[in-house]
Amino acid sequence: MGAGHVATHLGLAMRQAGLEVLQVYNRTARRGQELAEMLGCTYTRQMQDLHPGADIYLMAVSDDAIPDLVSTFPFSDRLLAHTSGSVPMNALMKAGIRAGVFYPLQTFSAGHAVDWNGLPLCLEANKADDMQGLRDLAVALGASPYEVHSDDRKALHLAAVFACNFSNHMFAIAAEILKEKDLPFELIRPLMAETTRKALESGRPARVQTGPAVRSNRAIMKEHANMLQAHPLWKRLYSSLSDSIAQTTTARNKSHTHDEL
Amino acid sequence: MGAGHVATHLGLAMRQAGLEVLQVYNRTARRGQELAEMLGCTYTRQMQDLHPGADIYLMAVSDDAIPDLVSTFPFSDRLLAHTSGSVPMNALMKAGIRAGVFYPLQTFSAGHAVDWNGLPLCLEANKADDMQGLRDLAVALGASPYEVHSDDRKALHLAAVFACNFSNHMFAIAAEILKEKDLPFELIRPLMAETTRKALESGRPARVQTGPAVRSNRAIMKEHANMLQAHPLWKRLYSSLSDSIAQTTTARNKSHTHDEL
Repeated sequence: MGAGHVATHLGLAMRQAGLEVLQVYNRTARRGQELAEMLGCTYTRQMQDLHPGADIYLMAVSDDAIPDLVSTFPFSDRLLAHTSGSVPMNALMKAGIRAGVFYPLQTFSAGHAVDWNGLPLCLEANKADDMQGLRDLAVALGASPYEVHSDDRKALHLAAVFACNFSNHMFAIAAEILKEKDLPFELIRPLMAETTRKALESGRPARVQTGPAVRSNRAIMKEHANMLQAHPLWKRLYSSLSDSIAQTTTARNKSHTHDEL
Repeated sequence: MGAGHVATHLGLAMRQAGLEVLQVYNRTARRGQELAEMLGCTYTRQMQDLHPGADIYLMAVSDDAIPDLVSTFPFSDRLLAHTSGSVPMNALMKAGIRAGVFYPLQTFSAGHAVDWNGLPLCLEANKADDMQGLRDLAVALGASPYEVHSDDRKALHLAAVFACNFSNHMFAIAAEILKEKDLPFELIRPLMAETTRKALESGRPARVQTGPAVRSNRAIMKEHANMLQAHPLWKRLYSSLSDSIAQTTTARNKSHTHDEL
């Protein structure tokens, strides 16, 4: 169910893994039919016409769409799982439904293949057999299954907002600052790549934090604030981020005074 | 001059490229001698004993240390260049000194080799011959030279703080959130790598922005704020970052409603 990025990538990965995708359900016919065609399966936009023979019914839809799908799900004794980071499993509880969660911790985008190999899949189910079924599906895709309960999954989703959405926004502001000066994006590519490589290698990014805020270099921070006069939101961010870095960073980092970045 | 991360990596890269490092100057003898040993050259802690025969005198020291070095530099008609992102070239102006800037746009850390291949080197000089000398040095290291004047270099340094220091802090907060729940860092590794890959590929990260703030998903944002009660600075950051994303992101992104992250 669904025909967005997650549904598309998940459907393609299942096909690739030799699994059968029986049907695409989607409210919007055009996108649903397109995806069904890509996956070589039937399409429906009526919940009462859902194929009755699936082992798992996966809802790869926006959080808001989940309650409607649950309330109109026409079967009992079937495994219905959603792919959301923030919707608790008990939102799927309804007489006779076996509930599950199949949350891939990754960002999906159109037109770019997803590497399912080792991709963390956060699983939850209220029956042991269903947990095994979800685990088998994850493994068939080459992914790494983790059993994560609803509260922890919410924390994970919050962490993912920082690690993905907010870090991208930092890259975006950097790129916009360059653009305003007609400086090429190329200039910060190696820095972005190395920053991420280093954070990944560290296993604990707070330990490898560098920059003016760690070194308490007030002169630079003041100058940067002045340069952001035309962007009050970015200026406020610069200040809040610097405060947060100063508070979060371990004392060990503060002894490094020679690294410019 | 200097024996920190930048000086060390720069010295090693010069040796690797077959260039001669004549001497290490450093105020702290231990680090200076260690580096001189690594580079197979002499060491001094007295500016008046600086080797007179260098083509370029490179100051890879903290910003604060630059004025002192400039005022005690014992030669005239020599090229003296600093490696700082934020110090203007005219801070080196002194009767008879030829001034230059050799700013590598990268984050340097102990114990990890730097890939100089294609690394952006922002150059500035007040004589055309000296610009050519700095360019030759950059090219000898395999780096990519860019002529960037002091004001643009400052903007670049500000951009680098966002792209490197602040994005790392986002990774750090994500990791700390996981740690508090005893969830393994492994869970967000692929997400961090993919986020950066996508931002790099886009050429303009604002265009690939995703997440609750782009989708104006107020329910999730409110829930996340509640989850951050114990971390007031992170909570304030979450809110400022979401505001900034909403304002910075192009209308095009807002039409994507199905991507969870």
